[in-house]
Amino acid sequence: MEFMTGVKQKDDVSVKALLETEEGSEIKVQGAVHIIRDMGEVAFVVLRKSEGLVQCVYEDGKVAFPLKDLKEESAVEVKGTVRKEERAPGGVEVCILEIRVLSEPTEPMPLAVNKWKMNTSLEAMLNMRPIALRNVRERAKFKIQEAVVRAFRDFLHSQGFTEIHTPKIGAKGAEGGANIFKLDYFHHPAVLAQSPQFYKQMLVGVFDRVFEVGPVFRAEKHNTKRHLNEYTSLDFEMGYIEDYTDIMSMETGFLQYLMELLKKEYQKELDILNVKLPKTDQIPSVPFAKAKELVAEKYNRKIRNPFDLEPEEEVLIGRYFKEEYDADFVFVTEYPSKKRPFYAMDDPKDPRYTLSFDLLFHGLEITTGGQRIHDYRMLSEKIAARGMTEEGMEQYLSAFKHGMPPHGGLGIGLERLTMKLIGEDNVRETTLFPRDLSRLEP
Amino acid sequence: MEFMTGVKQKDDVSVKALLETEEGSEIKVQGAVHIIRDMGEVAFVVLRKSEGLVQCVYEDGKVAFPLKDLKEESAVEVKGTVRKEERAPGGVEVCILEIRVLSEPTEPMPLAVNKWKMNTSLEAMLNMRPIALRNVRERAKFKIQEAVVRAFRDFLHSQGFTEIHTPKIGAKGAEGGANIFKLDYFHHPAVLAQSPQFYKQMLVGVFDRVFEVGPVFRAEKHNTKRHLNEYTSLDFEMGYIEDYTDIMSMETGFLQYLMELLKKEYQKELDILNVKLPKTDQIPSVPFAKAKELVAEKYNRKIRNPFDLEPEEEVLIGRYFKEEYDADFVFVTEYPSKKRPFYAMDDPKDPRYTLSFDLLFHGLEITTGGQRIHDYRMLSEKIAARGMTEEGMEQYLSAFKHGMPPHGGLGIGLERLTMKLIGEDNVRETTLFPRDLSRLEP
Repeated sequence: MEFMTGVKQKDDVSVKALLETEEGSEIKVQGAVHIIRDMGEVAFVVLRKSEGLVQCVYEDGKVAFPLKDLKEESAVEVKGTVRKEERAPGGVEVCILEIRVLSEPTEPMPLAVNKWKMNTSLEAMLNMRPIALRNVRERAKFKIQEAVVRAFRDFLHSQGFTEIHTPKIGAKGAEGGANIFKLDYFHHPAVLAQSPQFYKQMLVGVFDRVFEVGPVFRAEKHNTKRHLNEYTSLDFEMGYIEDYTDIMSMETGFLQYLMELLKKEYQKELDILNVKLPKTDQIPSVPFAKAKELVAEKYNRKIRNPFDLEPEEEVLIGRYFKEEYDADFVFVTEYPSKKRPFYAMDDPKDPRYTLSFDLLFHGLEITTGGQRIHDYRMLSEKIAARGMTEEGMEQYLSAFKHGMPPHGGLGIGLERLTMKLIGEDNVRETTLFPRDLSRLEP
Repeated sequence: MEFMTGVKQKDDVSVKALLETEEGSEIKVQGAVHIIRDMGEVAFVVLRKSEGLVQCVYEDGKVAFPLKDLKEESAVEVKGTVRKEERAPGGVEVCILEIRVLSEPTEPMPLAVNKWKMNTSLEAMLNMRPIALRNVRERAKFKIQEAVVRAFRDFLHSQGFTEIHTPKIGAKGAEGGANIFKLDYFHHPAVLAQSPQFYKQMLVGVFDRVFEVGPVFRAEKHNTKRHLNEYTSLDFEMGYIEDYTDIMSMETGFLQYLMELLKKEYQKELDILNVKLPKTDQIPSVPFAKAKELVAEKYNRKIRNPFDLEPEEEVLIGRYFKEEYDADFVFVTEYPSKKRPFYAMDDPKDPRYTLSFDLLFHGLEITTGGQRIHDYRMLSEKIAARGMTEEGMEQYLSAFKHGMPPHGGLGIGLERLTMKLIGEDNVRETTLFPRDLSRLEP
């Protein structure tokens, strides 16, 4: 009988291990042939590995494998000796002794993914996404995204949150409204989740603090640089709060943790993308009405609607706090009640406003959060006052009938946060396979 | 201007901190009133916190708050002094000085969630899920599930895998077939992802090794104890493999890592659920045809169909390897080609079989995996041989035209693995909010 006993040791050397290998050592390295630069008597064969590029040197007559038979984007294994060379990435190159081809492409590349910057439109890159992502800068964006998700989970775990997985198919949407994808579920009408809102609230009654990283679906007919119809939402919900500043404090803690993680483990990607990390040591917090006044005054702008915030106003608020406080982030608090869903806790001092907030990052909303109503009677009254029905919400409401602690939470758009972190301006840049009004493939 | 500077320190004491607090110290503790045991002159008020239960003692005349006004499932803050008491959970109790009610239920509980075991049918528990999960044993199952997901991610991260987030709405399913949920996507026909198969393969060309934790959707009309129509899939895919045993070895490594994590950080939940961890030091691996023979011989069973495995046969294989090798897990390899999707790599020695495997855990399939075809021509031929069309798969196939390393991967059903770990026999027991033929709510 054969037995599996655990991870196999590979003799393929990692980029990190290569840089620490003694000069003259013989190693094996696997990777995709990223680019071949034929200089005549020597050629540089650059391998692309998950963690970076490895420069290999092909010298005529020293390798049995003919250079002309080597194709870019082939997967290969190179056997060679390690040599210091300061012009090579990481100061090390590999003098090729043997090349073994593991797999070959059948067609030439439609995009110059081996250029530092591809001179290609976003549209073209999205159309050829599985190929375009092989570019070193493109894939670095998604390593930064990986860091965001790791930081979110690891930080919240350290704060006593439990990770949950809630269904994406349901009978009724959490926010209501028309922006819901509908489907047939074994001859029953069903919808795709706009957010895990109801579930995470119900589970505060079970685990006190919960979080989820998962897809959410919005059938909005927006065609803008900041909207997607499917995106990854970083959600948390926490019980036993004093007020909604507990939630903003927790988010600030997450952002601080993220910046530390990026500095510690993702410096290479930050360098590739030329990212300057934002400041998170102190994040200003300003009430909605006050924020409107501040920008109206400073930028000489009329307040047209005191109960709404236009995208241009968000941009100006971002600009104001950058100019006045050198702040990259700003919490805008106490949003008008009518712009918030029914479960938002109204401000007892002025019920036209809620105990809620948005977080703006360089003038773009990346988070919506706030305190929720935890008292069943209050919730029931607000549902009635809005002319809504409790039908279909029985299970959600039952959690409140049977006791719920004061609580609140937030949702962060992963792609938007990543986009702002790396200084891009289209959320599709930081989405592996975006879904928008015109894009259902690849 | 106000500023957020990071996580606020709470004066609420955690269970862990409470157990380390000096006797006589005054503390504050928040939680839900799990149960009130009125003994006359004293009463025990047990608080339920995320991490466990805290016994508080209410002595008549010592607390201003009348006991009769305290309701089970209220959220409260108790101020009190710490006292050693070996009969209390953790050997510590809190003598109540003050009670502050943070929130109250409006209705009595429909289920005895404060009993150790609720004498209630699974059906009833699922119908009242948000409430039933408050039971200590119920929620412990999902802490074990949390550990599974943490172990999967942390282990794969340590092995150089990159986490990905791929779309759940798409134009075409990865596996094909009729078991796909369909929806209307802005007047285009769309489907919900049955698996991230195509995406994770394409991304092996970018990151070499990738993983995803996310929902998958199967419109199968099975109504069994082991099927769900939406579940959480733990997927990985790795490039530059020698053969499919690399994948089984990686999974074995994950399982070993998981067992260590459970022992180290989830002993409390293992105790609550009375779990005996399975053996993962060496996992037997047996070819499909051989496995059928072994059980046919030992249990005197006729082989009816040499190219299929019945659920009863899976159970017998599990039993065989438990009896003969004291093994909890067994890899069954080389599945018949016609039972595997088109992208599975056929065995060059006998193309009726594939270089693939299932992992059985106590006789239930919890993983399907294997090596995939990486050569475009071979893939194209197999598609044609199956009478399938390349239409709609252009992007997937483009990754192969432009070079892909030898690779393979697997998918693990999170709920099934959790179920088997804790010795349950219905996958709904380990799903927060199951979706099945008759269940779309809560």
